[in-house]
Amino acid sequence: MLKTPYLLFLGDAPDQLAAKVAQGIKDWRPEHCVGQLRLEGCKADLGLPELTVAQAREKGAETLIVGAANRGGVISQSWLATLVEAAEAGMDIASGLHNRLTSLPDLVHASNINSTSLYDVRVPQHDYPIADGKKRSGKRCLAVGTDCSVGKMYTALAMEKAMRERGMKATFRATGQTGILITGSGVPLDAVIADFMAGSVEWLTPDNDEDHWDLIEGQGSLFHPSFSGVTMALVHGGQPDALVLCHEPTRTHMRGLPHYGLPSLEALRDLSLTLAQVVNPDVKVVGVSVNTAALDEDAAARCLEEIESRMGLPTVDPFRNGADRLAEALG
Amino acid sequence: MLKTPYLLFLGDAPDQLAAKVAQGIKDWRPEHCVGQLRLEGCKADLGLPELTVAQAREKGAETLIVGAANRGGVISQSWLATLVEAAEAGMDIASGLHNRLTSLPDLVHASNINSTSLYDVRVPQHDYPIADGKKRSGKRCLAVGTDCSVGKMYTALAMEKAMRERGMKATFRATGQTGILITGSGVPLDAVIADFMAGSVEWLTPDNDEDHWDLIEGQGSLFHPSFSGVTMALVHGGQPDALVLCHEPTRTHMRGLPHYGLPSLEALRDLSLTLAQVVNPDVKVVGVSVNTAALDEDAAARCLEEIESRMGLPTVDPFRNGADRLAEALG
Repeated sequence: MLKTPYLLFLGDAPDQLAAKVAQGIKDWRPEHCVGQLRLEGCKADLGLPELTVAQAREKGAETLIVGAANRGGVISQSWLATLVEAAEAGMDIASGLHNRLTSLPDLVHASNINSTSLYDVRVPQHDYPIADGKKRSGKRCLAVGTDCSVGKMYTALAMEKAMRERGMKATFRATGQTGILITGSGVPLDAVIADFMAGSVEWLTPDNDEDHWDLIEGQGSLFHPSFSGVTMALVHGGQPDALVLCHEPTRTHMRGLPHYGLPSLEALRDLSLTLAQVVNPDVKVVGVSVNTAALDEDAAARCLEEIESRMGLPTVDPFRNGADRLAEALG
Repeated sequence: MLKTPYLLFLGDAPDQLAAKVAQGIKDWRPEHCVGQLRLEGCKADLGLPELTVAQAREKGAETLIVGAANRGGVISQSWLATLVEAAEAGMDIASGLHNRLTSLPDLVHASNINSTSLYDVRVPQHDYPIADGKKRSGKRCLAVGTDCSVGKMYTALAMEKAMRERGMKATFRATGQTGILITGSGVPLDAVIADFMAGSVEWLTPDNDEDHWDLIEGQGSLFHPSFSGVTMALVHGGQPDALVLCHEPTRTHMRGLPHYGLPSLEALRDLSLTLAQVVNPDVKVVGVSVNTAALDEDAAARCLEEIESRMGLPTVDPFRNGADRLAEALG
């Protein structure tokens, strides 16, 4: 569990998209953000107060989050001085990038002598059990997709927000590095050893109040040959009571696999239900979440109407419409 | 790839079952076995020549295989002297037990100074790629089960044997530690990191002659909540042309999960086909393999007849009947 509040470090991010992790934290956990720190040449801007390390520390920042990727997708040398400065100022540092904070000797040294922590959130932090498949108290909702990167995390976060606004008990459960950085905890499922995948999801979504919902972040797709095993572990370890189908209507092939077409929403519904019923015979598909970012307003509305009428399920783009109707479907 | 031939080390195995790994090697790769080495108190016996380390070396043994488990399932201190002696005699050592050969300092030392190798076959030996889902040349058959431990490995090994006897090109592809020790190579799939599971199966079953069959060892079950993600990676990474359904007719619940009943063979057939069609639209279920060890001869025959008539598929117990009819179904 990362200590809050955060200083969001954007480095020299070449554009706004490169800072999408920081953007996600600011969008979904604004109460955790005291400000941003940008290096010379940074083209991303979250509109947060610009702070030095010392200023952030004065405002109470406990953790510096590496919230951007540079062109290489790794922690660059030009960032190192700032990270060392933060460790020396007594802050923890968290990153989801590929090269590890703990592989940077100067940073490890600064962190050690100042008794701060370095969190590489791509690296599992626990020894997870083997799943036992036992029924747990409380309710769980899992977002499943026709493909990878169709908005499963966004959907679960938007549902958490809408549910809390309605006074429902809801907790987003992160299963990827961006989600973990946004919420401060979770399981980096794609880095867990095969035998313990489903067990790590059980660990992430333990017994809870009967009227509490876990909103489990989906990963991959049951139809994506590279990552379907990870998705399967989410379905069986997550033991969902409710499934939300996620889709991107303009995608022409599975992400990264030009030779694979997308499944229909009907195929996703039927396969997800069949698999989820193994662990929970009462599971239901409660709605559809469509990422219509590539469509104009009229086309998006027509797309949502067509899917809603075809599937007979509440269908929204949570970015355009909010997730109220999905929250209601769980009510 | 382990160097052959082998000396099979049975330690002080308390009964024959504790030596099942060695028994598997002797049953399926007798040409690789020069003899057995048993310590005082060993209750297992493979009927192979009793050899000391020195005698085995004279007969050309290149690798000592730890082919038994003692009561703790770990490499015991009482075995260590023999393992060190083998390393000093210039032999490699391979083990599938939980504690690692490489965690035993005396053995590591002996191995280093004699330039021999220690193989912990539970530990992945490669950096596997992420699966790309591309069609590969050659044919693949995957054994899938209604549960774990219903005879999937035995079925694939028996099919390989029957196919080779018919002059077909066939290679058993091991995905678990016992299979790896039997054949000398493979992928310990349950120890692979989630993101690379399907890629490791693609790596294990590469392009081959168009008339060559890989017989892929199954793991887990699509219906077993603890391990279904591993099975899913086999289905999508293996890209099977043919599926064999494996079943144990007297099992009353899923292995290790008393609160989960077994699926029907029909449910296994339908789900396996649906999932395998994602990567290979032409996949077919070609037969059923039933482990009837718990039934007497009459009951076994009736059970096989009933399933064959119900499923409309060649149905055999490869231990009682051989796997000729399954080999024929691939012909």
